[in-house]
Amino acid sequence: MIVTIRDIAEKVGVSVTTVSRVLNNRGYLSDGLKKRVHEAMEEMNYQPNEVARSLSRKKSNILGLIIPDISHPFFAQMTKHMEYYAYKHGYKLMLCNSLLDKKKEKEYIDLLRASQVDGIIMGSHTMSVKEYLSIKLPLVTLDRQISESIPYISSDNYRGGSLATQLLLRKNCNKIAYLSGNLQLNMLAKQRHDAFVRQAKGKGVEYIVKQTDMNGFQYKKYENLVRELFQEHPDIDGVFASSDMLALQVVRECRRLGKSVPDQVKVVGYDGIQIGGTEDLTTIAQPIKEMGRLAVQHLLQQIAGEETPLETILPVKLLEKGTT
Amino acid sequence: MIVTIRDIAEKVGVSVTTVSRVLNNRGYLSDGLKKRVHEAMEEMNYQPNEVARSLSRKKSNILGLIIPDISHPFFAQMTKHMEYYAYKHGYKLMLCNSLLDKKKEKEYIDLLRASQVDGIIMGSHTMSVKEYLSIKLPLVTLDRQISESIPYISSDNYRGGSLATQLLLRKNCNKIAYLSGNLQLNMLAKQRHDAFVRQAKGKGVEYIVKQTDMNGFQYKKYENLVRELFQEHPDIDGVFASSDMLALQVVRECRRLGKSVPDQVKVVGYDGIQIGGTEDLTTIAQPIKEMGRLAVQHLLQQIAGEETPLETILPVKLLEKGTT
Repeated sequence: MIVTIRDIAEKVGVSVTTVSRVLNNRGYLSDGLKKRVHEAMEEMNYQPNEVARSLSRKKSNILGLIIPDISHPFFAQMTKHMEYYAYKHGYKLMLCNSLLDKKKEKEYIDLLRASQVDGIIMGSHTMSVKEYLSIKLPLVTLDRQISESIPYISSDNYRGGSLATQLLLRKNCNKIAYLSGNLQLNMLAKQRHDAFVRQAKGKGVEYIVKQTDMNGFQYKKYENLVRELFQEHPDIDGVFASSDMLALQVVRECRRLGKSVPDQVKVVGYDGIQIGGTEDLTTIAQPIKEMGRLAVQHLLQQIAGEETPLETILPVKLLEKGTT
Repeated sequence: MIVTIRDIAEKVGVSVTTVSRVLNNRGYLSDGLKKRVHEAMEEMNYQPNEVARSLSRKKSNILGLIIPDISHPFFAQMTKHMEYYAYKHGYKLMLCNSLLDKKKEKEYIDLLRASQVDGIIMGSHTMSVKEYLSIKLPLVTLDRQISESIPYISSDNYRGGSLATQLLLRKNCNKIAYLSGNLQLNMLAKQRHDAFVRQAKGKGVEYIVKQTDMNGFQYKKYENLVRELFQEHPDIDGVFASSDMLALQVVRECRRLGKSVPDQVKVVGYDGIQIGGTEDLTTIAQPIKEMGRLAVQHLLQQIAGEETPLETILPVKLLEKGTT
């Protein structure tokens, strides 16, 4: 229950104007009256109304964050950093999981707009470009380039794809696979795939591409995808998985099939998440913290009416560990 | 930038009252005027002001969630479910990571109150009971019993601790260890420890207890804790870790030391998170989804002024897998 100055006025038995004068320390007021008003405010736990002030300031100091699924470690880790930087600058974060549901994504944008958020960080991308352009709020996207007017933050997906594939080829893999989420989502992550295909073709090495359907992050689906891969292509000896979670499934399936990693099958993941089980995984590490920090920074710059770089592509790093 | 009816009025060149009449379809208004107002609203992307309405309704439809760290999979997974249920009931979730920093926790409560959230779910517990009691907002806590007036959601920590320890004893472990976060945090999770000690004493089996310092979830600290354990007690043959993340570190350290799991060392985790690497882990599974759902439900009941159960203790389940 929100306590307003009207409630305080009723409690003390004075007018709203009088309470307002006490609050703003305006006009002549007896010490006794001031004391009674302050005591009532304390007792009723009155808070200077941030919502009312946000109306007059036209700012809510809330940022909306729309991501596919907070339970995915990549997003959980990035969100942690976003929340940290938002807080540091006096902003709160409203969390929205789209679960890659187009309808939910759209509804969330309307909800966030109605809640007067100052801006949105968009990490879920099932809507059309037209729908994005109609948002008309400060906006930063993650890993998707919507138009030339909406800034995005990404890491160097093409280079990441090249580094991963080159490593598999350097280790003399003869038949390699690329595993990923749905490629039709029109994400910049598709460049990992493009780099993979280009490298494989360039070396004349046989390759396979497999992707999940649109409903991304379900571990059961990852499991099936990996199982299918080895059933259809038992001679695969190198796998580039577009997330560490997917790569862990590959390692697990190899263990189940009695294929030794890295001797018989080499595995490279993507993301560089810090989570149990990934310690020995060769991976392409994205600068998750820096991506989160810059997403917030560029959104705040927009909100302040400052210039914001439209393209931010951060470097990735190959971490060679036990699975290659 | 928030567009108000004042902006619309200026744009169209009419009074605020006129715009308000158009919005509420009150009084006589020419079709031409209505059309001009509606066009201006569309062009300026005016949204019926949820913030202003929340002021008059005294409701914001926002719930605050304060947890230690969203990047910890247990909280990430529970938050996913909370967000789902909040959304289903027309509420948004404001995410706050306390990082177990007492000052930040306190500041967040003030921030949330100032933002007029309708209630708070509290999963981070560094504050004193007195500070909790002064919150004076609908409140539900996770895994901590603050007072007899604040409802909490928990799972059966004592039974979880008993199940885990009994399993190690049944498997004929001779020297067992309990590993956990800091026990002084005064969480209900401490009951896992109590059950462990009681079971071990009951059977007359040698036991060790090791805990991290107050700054919980840092994987590096987990690593050091586990390393220390085996340096100081190389003859440990059973470990009960109070989280799956910690249990994974134990399995990893055993691998590093050339101790086979489960033959030489048996490992039981806690939580039942779904994350790569935990597939073969014997663990005590908490009903994460149900805990998240009930936390939201009991908070919404409080907000609606309905009766809420003060104690909610959900059952846990032993999942026996490859590490015991």
